[in-house]
Amino acid sequence: MIRAAIVGATGYTGAELVRLLSRHPEVKLVGLTSQQYAGQPYENVFHHFADQVDLHCSPQHIEEIVADADVLFLAVPHGLSVPWVVESLRQGKKVIDLGADFRFRRADVYEKWYSTHHDAPELLAEAVYGLPELKREAVAKARVVANPGCYPTASVLSVAPILGKGIINEGRLIIDAKSGVSGAGRKLNTPSLYAEANENINAYNVGKHRHIPEIEQEIAERAGLQADQMAISFTPHLTPMTRGILATVYADIQAGVKITTDELRQMYQEFYAGEFFVHVMKEGVWPHTKWSYGSNHAFIGVTVEERTGRIIVSTAIDNLVKGASGQAIQNMNILFGLPEKTAIEAPGMFP
Amino acid sequence: MIRAAIVGATGYTGAELVRLLSRHPEVKLVGLTSQQYAGQPYENVFHHFADQVDLHCSPQHIEEIVADADVLFLAVPHGLSVPWVVESLRQGKKVIDLGADFRFRRADVYEKWYSTHHDAPELLAEAVYGLPELKREAVAKARVVANPGCYPTASVLSVAPILGKGIINEGRLIIDAKSGVSGAGRKLNTPSLYAEANENINAYNVGKHRHIPEIEQEIAERAGLQADQMAISFTPHLTPMTRGILATVYADIQAGVKITTDELRQMYQEFYAGEFFVHVMKEGVWPHTKWSYGSNHAFIGVTVEERTGRIIVSTAIDNLVKGASGQAIQNMNILFGLPEKTAIEAPGMFP
Amino acid sequence: MIRAAIVGATGYTGAELVRLLSRHPEVKLVGLTSQQYAGQPYENVFHHFADQVDLHCSPQHIEEIVADADVLFLAVPHGLSVPWVVESLRQGKKVIDLGADFRFRRADVYEKWYSTHHDAPELLAEAVYGLPELKREAVAKARVVANPGCYPTASVLSVAPILGKGIINEGRLIIDAKSGVSGAGRKLNTPSLYAEANENINAYNVGKHRHIPEIEQEIAERAGLQADQMAISFTPHLTPMTRGILATVYADIQAGVKITTDELRQMYQEFYAGEFFVHVMKEGVWPHTKWSYGSNHAFIGVTVEERTGRIIVSTAIDNLVKGASGQAIQNMNILFGLPEKTAIEAPGMFP
Amino acid sequence: MIRAAIVGATGYTGAELVRLLSRHPEVKLVGLTSQQYAGQPYENVFHHFADQVDLHCSPQHIEEIVADADVLFLAVPHGLSVPWVVESLRQGKKVIDLGADFRFRRADVYEKWYSTHHDAPELLAEAVYGLPELKREAVAKARVVANPGCYPTASVLSVAPILGKGIINEGRLIIDAKSGVSGAGRKLNTPSLYAEANENINAYNVGKHRHIPEIEQEIAERAGLQADQMAISFTPHLTPMTRGILATVYADIQAGVKITTDELRQMYQEFYAGEFFVHVMKEGVWPHTKWSYGSNHAFIGVTVEERTGRIIVSTAIDNLVKGASGQAIQNMNILFGLPEKTAIEAPGMFP
Repeated sequence: MIRAAIVGATGYTGAELVRLLSRHPEVKLVGLTSQQYAGQPYENVFHHFADQVDLHCSPQHIEEIVADADVLFLAVPHGLSVPWVVESLRQGKKVIDLGADFRFRRADVYEKWYSTHHDAPELLAEAVYGLPELKREAVAKARVVANPGCYPTASVLSVAPILGKGIINEGRLIIDAKSGVSGAGRKLNTPSLYAEANENINAYNVGKHRHIPEIEQEIAERAGLQADQMAISFTPHLTPMTRGILATVYADIQAGVKITTDELRQMYQEFYAGEFFVHVMKEGVWPHTKWSYGSNHAFIGVTVEERTGRIIVSTAIDNLVKGASGQAIQNMNILFGLPEKTAIEAPGMFP
Repeated sequence: MIRAAIVGATGYTGAELVRLLSRHPEVKLVGLTSQQYAGQPYENVFHHFADQVDLHCSPQHIEEIVADADVLFLAVPHGLSVPWVVESLRQGKKVIDLGADFRFRRADVYEKWYSTHHDAPELLAEAVYGLPELKREAVAKARVVANPGCYPTASVLSVAPILGKGIINEGRLIIDAKSGVSGAGRKLNTPSLYAEANENINAYNVGKHRHIPEIEQEIAERAGLQADQMAISFTPHLTPMTRGILATVYADIQAGVKITTDELRQMYQEFYAGEFFVHVMKEGVWPHTKWSYGSNHAFIGVTVEERTGRIIVSTAIDNLVKGASGQAIQNMNILFGLPEKTAIEAPGMFP
Repeated sequence: MIRAAIVGATGYTGAELVRLLSRHPEVKLVGLTSQQYAGQPYENVFHHFADQVDLHCSPQHIEEIVADADVLFLAVPHGLSVPWVVESLRQGKKVIDLGADFRFRRADVYEKWYSTHHDAPELLAEAVYGLPELKREAVAKARVVANPGCYPTASVLSVAPILGKGIINEGRLIIDAKSGVSGAGRKLNTPSLYAEANENINAYNVGKHRHIPEIEQEIAERAGLQADQMAISFTPHLTPMTRGILATVYADIQAGVKITTDELRQMYQEFYAGEFFVHVMKEGVWPHTKWSYGSNHAFIGVTVEERTGRIIVSTAIDNLVKGASGQAIQNMNILFGLPEKTAIEAPGMFP
Repeated sequence: MIRAAIVGATGYTGAELVRLLSRHPEVKLVGLTSQQYAGQPYENVFHHFADQVDLHCSPQHIEEIVADADVLFLAVPHGLSVPWVVESLRQGKKVIDLGADFRFRRADVYEKWYSTHHDAPELLAEAVYGLPELKREAVAKARVVANPGCYPTASVLSVAPILGKGIINEGRLIIDAKSGVSGAGRKLNTPSLYAEANENINAYNVGKHRHIPEIEQEIAERAGLQADQMAISFTPHLTPMTRGILATVYADIQAGVKITTDELRQMYQEFYAGEFFVHVMKEGVWPHTKWSYGSNHAFIGVTVEERTGRIIVSTAIDNLVKGASGQAIQNMNILFGLPEKTAIEAPGMFP
C-alpha cells in the first residue's frame, strides 16, 4: 500500500482528495493536516465522511508527516509549499503540489504574477508540470509534480492537438472561461456567499488572473513560441454552480490554411485516441460541465467557423477533479506505476 | 458475471443505474431498453457516458430481454411492470421493480391511490419490499423485489428504531419532506422547468401524494398497528436542487414515557449498528442532503423536544441513489449473495 | 417629505430598505449608517445602486442621526437597538426596529432565548408588534414599532384566521419552515457559502430557534392561551435559494369539530378580505415562494386533511420584504398616515 | 390612459410586460391574448398576480384586439408578427414587436438565418430598431418598433461608444455571452429542465445563433462597414440562473492606436452621460448580472489589456427586462412622449 498524506486536508481540494483516495485500492491515508482543525476528527469537519474516514486532523509537523508517507499531496495556499517539497526530496518521498509554487519554469514569472518571492528557484527545474495527457513520460520519472491549475487544465487541453502545426495563431488566443464557486475554496469572502453568487455571473480579475502566465507558458512550449510572442487574453467568470469549468477558446486560423470542422475533429480524435479521460464530442454537441460533475473526465467540442476564419473550442471539466484532486491522483498513479485511472475512473454524475 | 438489463434506461433512475452498474465488478450490462430512443447509442442520449458505455437503446421485447438477463431492473412508470415480472418469474429470473406496482400488499390500496387496476394482484404476496436495513433476510430469498419509493425510504428509516416500542404515537406522525427536482423525472412538464423551480419552494399534492399509503403500510407493519389506525400527514415539497430528499418527522411521545435525546440517539445507534449506509449524527448535527449527494448513504439526526413532548427526526438521502437506483443495486447485491455495498460504497460528493 | 434614516444600511435588510425607499414618493433618505463602510459611497458597497443612490455611509452618531430624521429604521443585530430607541423617543421621532429587541412583552423571555440582558425592559410596553394585518390600529398610534421576524410573519399569518375559535389546538401547532440563505444576512460564515448551501437543504437550530418564543407569544395572544399552554414545534430549514420563506403548518382539529376545506378557505378569505398583501389560494393551488420574490405579498394555501383530522396551511413570503424591510415600510406608511401600500405595491417577480 | 394589448401574454416576456405595465401610471391593460390559455383568468396562469390582475386570456382576434388598443406588444414566436403589424398600421395603432420579424433591414438576411419566408418585406423599412440609447429620435417617430434581441442589446451597448472611431477592428469582434435559462422561454424542452440546466454551463448554437446577423447589422451600421466586412464570432452559453445576460466582448485595437483604460472609460462615460439606464463601472469593478435583476438597468465594465492590444468589455443586463419587456416599455414611453423611465425606473434586486 502507498502511504499518502494530504497537507491542507480541510479545504475543498483536500476533501476531494480524501473522497477519491479513501477508495483507492492501493492507497492508505496516513495523514490529514489542518491548521484550523488540528486535533479534531476529520469526519467532524466534513460530515459526509461520517463513519467512513477514521482519521484526525494533525498539525503541520513537516518532518514527521513526510517520514510517515510515501507521497504527499500539498493542498495549501501558494507560497507555503517549498518547505514540504524540500523535506520530501530530502527524505526521498514523492510530492504532488496542487498549488502554483512549482508550476513555472522561471521564478521571475511566478514572482511577478504572484507578487511574492520564491524561496527555492533552484528546485523549479526539478518539477514536472503534471498534465498527464501531455507529459505522461516526464511525470513517471518525476520526484516533484506541479499539478496544473484548473483553468490551465481546461485551456491547454482545448488546444493541445493543434499547437505548433501552423494552423492557428497560438500567441493570440482568446480564452473565455467560466468556473463554479468552489474554485474560490472554502475560505470566507463575501463574493462566495450564496446570496451573492446565486443567480449571478460576472467576469473577475480581467487581464490579471494568475493562471494567465501558466497558460501562456504551456501553450508557448508546445507551439514553439517565445514568451514575448504570447498575448493570450484569458477572462475568468464566476458562475452560479458549485463545480465545473467551461473554457471557450477562440483561435484565428492562419492565413492560407484550409481546414474543415470534420478535419479538425479528426485531429482531436487522433490526438486524444487512447486517452481514457478526454472525450471529443460529435458534430453539433457542445460540452456541458454537468457531464463531468465529480469525475476526472474532460469533454471537448470543436468547430471551424468558416464565416470568421476562426476555430472555436469549448472544454468542460470538474474544477475540483480533473482541475485539481483527480488529476493529482492521476499523477500519483503514474508516479507509482499503477493503472492511470485507478480510483478516478467513475463517469460524471448526471443529473 | 451477473447479466443485468435495465428496462426504461433513459430516465434519470435508469441513467443512475447505468452509472453505478457500469462499474460494478460482478455485473455486465446486457440490455438498456427505451421506447423513445430505441436504436440510438446510449451515449448519444446521455453524453456523460461518451466513450464509456457501449450499448444501444433497445426496444421493449420482453421475452428476449428477460432471456438475455439474470436480473431485470424495471425503471418504468407505474402500471407497466406486470408483464415484465410475469415473464421474469416464468423464466426464473430475478426482478427488481423501482416503481410502485409491487410495493403494496393489498391491491385495493394500490388501485385506490393510483387510480388504476392491478393486473396481477396474486403476485403481490410474492414481492418483498426491499428496504434492506429492515428486510435483508426476506430480500435474500425473494424473486421479486419492490424497491421502495424515495420518500418512504427516508421516512421509514427516520422512525424504524422506535416503532412498536411504546415510545411514540406511530399512527399520527407528521412527515414534512423536501425533494430535489429530479424526483419528477426527465419528462417535460412546466413545474420542472428551471425558471419555474429555481429560487422556489412549494408544497404539492398535500394530503394526496401516492407515497402516503406506502409509508403507512410499512410503519403500521413495524408498529403493529392496523391500517385504520394510521393517520399520518405527509407533505412533500419541491425544492430548488437537483438531487436530495430531506424528511423531517414529528412524533408525539406517548403519555408517561420519559426519554432523553441521549437515550434516543443510543437507540438509533444500536438499531443501525453495523449498517454501512446509515449514519446517526452526533448531538446538534442535523443532516444536509448534500452529504448524501450521489451516494447510497443516509444521515439521520434526532432530538427529544422536551418543551413539546415530541421527537423530531430529520433524515437526508439522495433520492436517485438510496431513494431509487442505489438501493436497487443494494437489493441486487443481496439477491446474488454479494457484499451488500459492492459498487455503491462511495461517500457523498461534497461540495 | 418624510426624512428617513437607516441604521445598519449595509446588510441585506438595509439594502432592501434602500431599494424600496429610494422610490417612495413621500420619503427622502437622509442617513445610511454602517460601521464597516463608514465614509464610503453607498453605491460602492452595493453596485446595483450605481448612479442611483447618492449617499455616503455614515458612522453611528446616534444623536445627530436621530435629529436629522423623522423616522429611523434599525437594521442592526439584536442587542444594539436600545440606545437608538431611547434617543428617538427623547427627540420625539418614530422608530421601527427590524431586530428582536422590542418584540417581546416580557423581558425574561427575550433574555432567556437570546442569552443576553435587556437594557430597557420598561420600554417594552411602549412597542407595538408591527404585523399590520393584525395590529394596524395599534401601529398607527405607536412611537416604537417592533417589526416581526421573518418566520413569525409567515407563521402567524398562516393561522391568524382560525385562532381562538375553538377549531384547532393552537398550543400544539407544528410549523415546518424553509428559508432562503439571505435570512442569515451578509455576514461571513461557512454555512452561507455558495458551495455549502447550494444543492442542499437541512434543518437547523431544531427546538432552539429564537423565533419560537415570538411565534408562541403572538399565537397565544390571539388564541387566548397562557404561555405555559404553548408547546409549538418550529423547525427552520436552510434552503438553496436567495430569498423566500415557506411555512407549512400542521394543526390538529379539536375533537368534535366538523369543517371542510371550502369552509376553511372561506374563513381565510373573509379574514383577509381587503388585505392588499395577503392572497388566499384556490382549491389545489399551493403557494410558491417565487411568486412573492421581491414583493410584500403573502400567499396562503389551506386544506382540511379529513383522513388525519388536521388542517394544513402553507404560506409563502419573501423573507427580506414582507419578512423584513417591506413590512417595515408598510408600518412606516401606517405611522405617517400614508396609503399602506405606497412604494411596496409591486407584484412578485416571476420567473 | 394608453390602452395596451399584449399579444402572447402567457410566455415569460408577456408576463414581464404585465408585471411592469400593471403599475404604469399612464397605461391600462386592455388585452392579454394567449392561444394556450384563452378564456382563463390570467391570474390562474401566473399566480403571482393573484388578486392583482383582473383580466382573462383572450383568443387571437386580430382586428378586435387592435381596435381596442392604442399600442400592441407582440410577444409571439418569430414568423407570426406580420398580420398584427399590418392590421396595426391599417388602424393607425403603434406596435412594438419583441420578436425578430422586423429587426432586419434586409429580408434575405432574415430569411436565411431564420429559415423561413418573410411575408411583408416591404414593411421592413418602416420599422425602427428600438435600442433607445442609440435611436431615440427615430423611435419617437416610428409606427413600428422592432424591439432588439436580448443578446444584441447587451452586445451593441458594449461597444457603441467606440464604433466607427478608428479604435478597434469592429468587423472581427468576439462576443462570448452567457444567458439565464428564461431566455429559452416557457416552452417545454429537455435542456430547460431544472435537473439539466442546474449546476451546468454549456455553449450552444456555436456560430449559428440567430442573433449573429442582428448584432452584425447594428454594429456595421454604426461602424460604417459593409455586411461583407463583418466576421463577428458570437457564442451564447446557457447558464444556471433564471435571468440575466452577460456579454464579454473582445476587440482588437487597431494598429497604431494608443489608448489607456482611463481614456476608454471616459469615452464610455461621455457617450452614456445622461442615460438613466446605462452605468459605466469604475476601475476594477466588473458587472454582475444580479445587479440588473428585474430591472431595466445595464452595467458596463471596460478595460484596455495592454499586454495583448485588446479592449475587453463586459455588460450585464436582465434578459427579460432591458433585453426584452423593459426595453419595449422604454420604447413605448418614447412613442407616446412620456418620461422614458416611467414604470421601469426601479433598481435591480440584490441580493
